[in-house]
Amino acid sequence: MNGLDVIRKRRSIREYSEKPISDEVLHEILDAGMRGPSCVNARDWSFIVVKDKDTLNKMADANGSPAEPLRGANVGILACGDLKRSFKGAPDYWIIDVSIACQNIVLAAAELGIGSVWLGTYPQTERVEGQKKLFQLPDSVIPHSLIALGYPKNQEELSLGSRSEYEPSQVHFEKW
Amino acid sequence: MNGLDVIRKRRSIREYSEKPISDEVLHEILDAGMRGPSCVNARDWSFIVVKDKDTLNKMADANGSPAEPLRGANVGILACGDLKRSFKGAPDYWIIDVSIACQNIVLAAAELGIGSVWLGTYPQTERVEGQKKLFQLPDSVIPHSLIALGYPKNQEELSLGSRSEYEPSQVHFEKW
Repeated sequence: MNGLDVIRKRRSIREYSEKPISDEVLHEILDAGMRGPSCVNARDWSFIVVKDKDTLNKMADANGSPAEPLRGANVGILACGDLKRSFKGAPDYWIIDVSIACQNIVLAAAELGIGSVWLGTYPQTERVEGQKKLFQLPDSVIPHSLIALGYPKNQEELSLGSRSEYEPSQVHFEKW
Repeated sequence: MNGLDVIRKRRSIREYSEKPISDEVLHEILDAGMRGPSCVNARDWSFIVVKDKDTLNKMADANGSPAEPLRGANVGILACGDLKRSFKGAPDYWIIDVSIACQNIVLAAAELGIGSVWLGTYPQTERVEGQKKLFQLPDSVIPHSLIALGYPKNQEELSLGSRSEYEPSQVHFEKW
């Protein structure tokens, strides 16, 4: 599907089939995540990719009830900021750079027929600390978001286009 | 092109032709911006869309030297967070939600043959304050990013695929 259709059809999918995601497909998804722009091209992210069910359950435990879909996911990705790479003039651009990577990941997944749901971690301190502890991350690596991935249990979910989501009240022309 | 190709071909384009972007195309780009996920579906963004050359120059003045491409842009978008809509439990998710909107905007533009460059504003305080003052924004509206848009001066730029950007060192399997 074309780029606009992928943006239209991407939706949060929380139930997955047992069909595994191949390593080749996973590589394509991660590659897409690394193709977004980043501040001064810092590429200040890193990714932890998990298939182990026990670890997926622990990631869900650490991220609160919205993270339940991870328990049935085929793959979970913890996207992190890597502060050793961040722009020294304004390190907090890492938050934006990792967001861009994650949006590319969920769009690439949709293009490849894979469902995903983005589970917020940063800036909720308890979740951030929970993931840091689970993976024993160095101080320079900050958990940003979890993404659960799997082929949709209901195959139709990814073929539905959504209605227009344009909100005229949120667009201002030439001035506020 | 398909969704993966758009992600691969999107690149920062800083020189534009005189060809105007039609209102219909601009609407499609903004619609894409509003189709990303957001925390608890808060949709906590708003957009100021500028074609006026004088205003584009003032936006560039307020955003430092990397914002020079705005002066030759056909359209500039100031994407903002709208804190009145943010998730009360963790308002700073607005930073992520606006990032997602901006990434959808630059990808939709690429699909439609339009070049773009994402110009960082937040978290650089001087830039944020400069845009706030220029547009006399209410306190609840925080400038996040500028996006310059225009048909590429060099049409070939958007047809070039980039090499793989996959960095194995930034991917960890199962554990850190």
